[in-house]
Amino acid sequence: MRQRLLSTVFLTPGLDLVGYHAHIGSQVFDLDAFELTIKTLTSFASSVRDKHGFVPRVLSPGGGVGISYEATDPEVDFSAWAGVAARTLIEGCEQHNLPLPELVVEPGRSIVGPAAVAVYTVGAIKVIPNIRTYISVDGGMADNIRPSLYGARYSAEVANRRVQSTGELVTVAGKYCESGDILIRDVDIGDVTSGDLIAIPAVGAYSLAMASNYNLALRPAVVMVRDGQATVIRRRERYEDLLAHEVLPVKSGLSS
Amino acid sequence: MRQRLLSTVFLTPGLDLVGYHAHIGSQVFDLDAFELTIKTLTSFASSVRDKHGFVPRVLSPGGGVGISYEATDPEVDFSAWAGVAARTLIEGCEQHNLPLPELVVEPGRSIVGPAAVAVYTVGAIKVIPNIRTYISVDGGMADNIRPSLYGARYSAEVANRRVQSTGELVTVAGKYCESGDILIRDVDIGDVTSGDLIAIPAVGAYSLAMASNYNLALRPAVVMVRDGQATVIRRRERYEDLLAHEVLPVKSGLSS
Repeated sequence: MRQRLLSTVFLTPGLDLVGYHAHIGSQVFDLDAFELTIKTLTSFASSVRDKHGFVPRVLSPGGGVGISYEATDPEVDFSAWAGVAARTLIEGCEQHNLPLPELVVEPGRSIVGPAAVAVYTVGAIKVIPNIRTYISVDGGMADNIRPSLYGARYSAEVANRRVQSTGELVTVAGKYCESGDILIRDVDIGDVTSGDLIAIPAVGAYSLAMASNYNLALRPAVVMVRDGQATVIRRRERYEDLLAHEVLPVKSGLSS
Repeated sequence: MRQRLLSTVFLTPGLDLVGYHAHIGSQVFDLDAFELTIKTLTSFASSVRDKHGFVPRVLSPGGGVGISYEATDPEVDFSAWAGVAARTLIEGCEQHNLPLPELVVEPGRSIVGPAAVAVYTVGAIKVIPNIRTYISVDGGMADNIRPSLYGARYSAEVANRRVQSTGELVTVAGKYCESGDILIRDVDIGDVTSGDLIAIPAVGAYSLAMASNYNLALRPAVVMVRDGQATVIRRRERYEDLLAHEVLPVKSGLSS
């Protein structure tokens, strides 16, 4: 399979094979995993060079560097990451007698993820004794489907005032008509009450990018904040946006 | 809790309590479940009437009637459903000496679900011997997140030609950058090949409604077909739609 694929790449006019890319997963905190990836890539590059004569000019061990969603998540030291990646690449190339390719890194989530905070307004609070307390908010799976989609965990803080810790774990629930519309299960956000704002950090990656208009909800605005200045960089959707694509079949043969 | 909630409803000016609604779940095929729901609602209505004097004018046992996504799914006989609902409501009201309320039914999915078929073009086919064969298509979790979100099952047929059965089960994979972007696992769609169109029935409910622009994908057009006539009723999105909400902060203090 590899052989056939590589032959196809080499023989296809207009395709310029520049090198190799790997993707090992997401939320990877273990630098050893990236070390192993680069070792595997240089070893693979060596075996292809021996068989086909191709020498990569570019090599990417991919992304997947984990970010901290909850306080208990580890943090990746990017200097250490770069050290491991550079050293492993240099050693691998020396070992296999390959010229040093350009090293491409893909730290997407670790740049945009922590850059954004989602702010919600708390609506009704539903206390079900001995079961759970639901803190409902004016958003949910339509603006951040990651918790529903693959169990992603977030933290939350009350953003408009200082609250007292209650020691109680509550569940932050969205407003959409799905029983799975839960943003955070079992989080301690103190004595939050209706009307409070709660902030969920690290939502810059894969949340608005996967946002929908479920229940005809309007996707939220994005506000950029720097040095005390706030600027809207993506405006809130309007109902006319939702209707912009509809074509009413009034004049067609389908109207009765 | 019930008592407090009802007192709040009775005492809030501007709120006109007309009756009760229940939601028992989704993809319910068992008519007994709706019978039990209506029995529970009439019994509850009786107990509230006894305690508070309130008599409901409207009663809805909710939706949740299952539809057939795969050939092996049962079909609900709506005449039978209506018979059970009407009989149970009449009997419950007679038993509890309640006047017959208006019966509201919510057969949403069963109307719009089977009304739509998703059509995809097959791209690359990846055969991993002894593991699985991936049939990639030009859509996926951004236009139908139900399989990724909660394991919804669909069937598929080649739509542009008659194919031979192969007896082989294949996996229909979407084009988005998530390992979870699988539309159908283990489906027999015959000797499908790149360039074929495949049709997935029963996508009218909860698919385009939950669609996103993930990976900056354009949400698809919707075409209404009747009596051999085809009319676009929702146009395909354009890249300008995706950029319509962006506000470039060129003139703000945020630009450097």
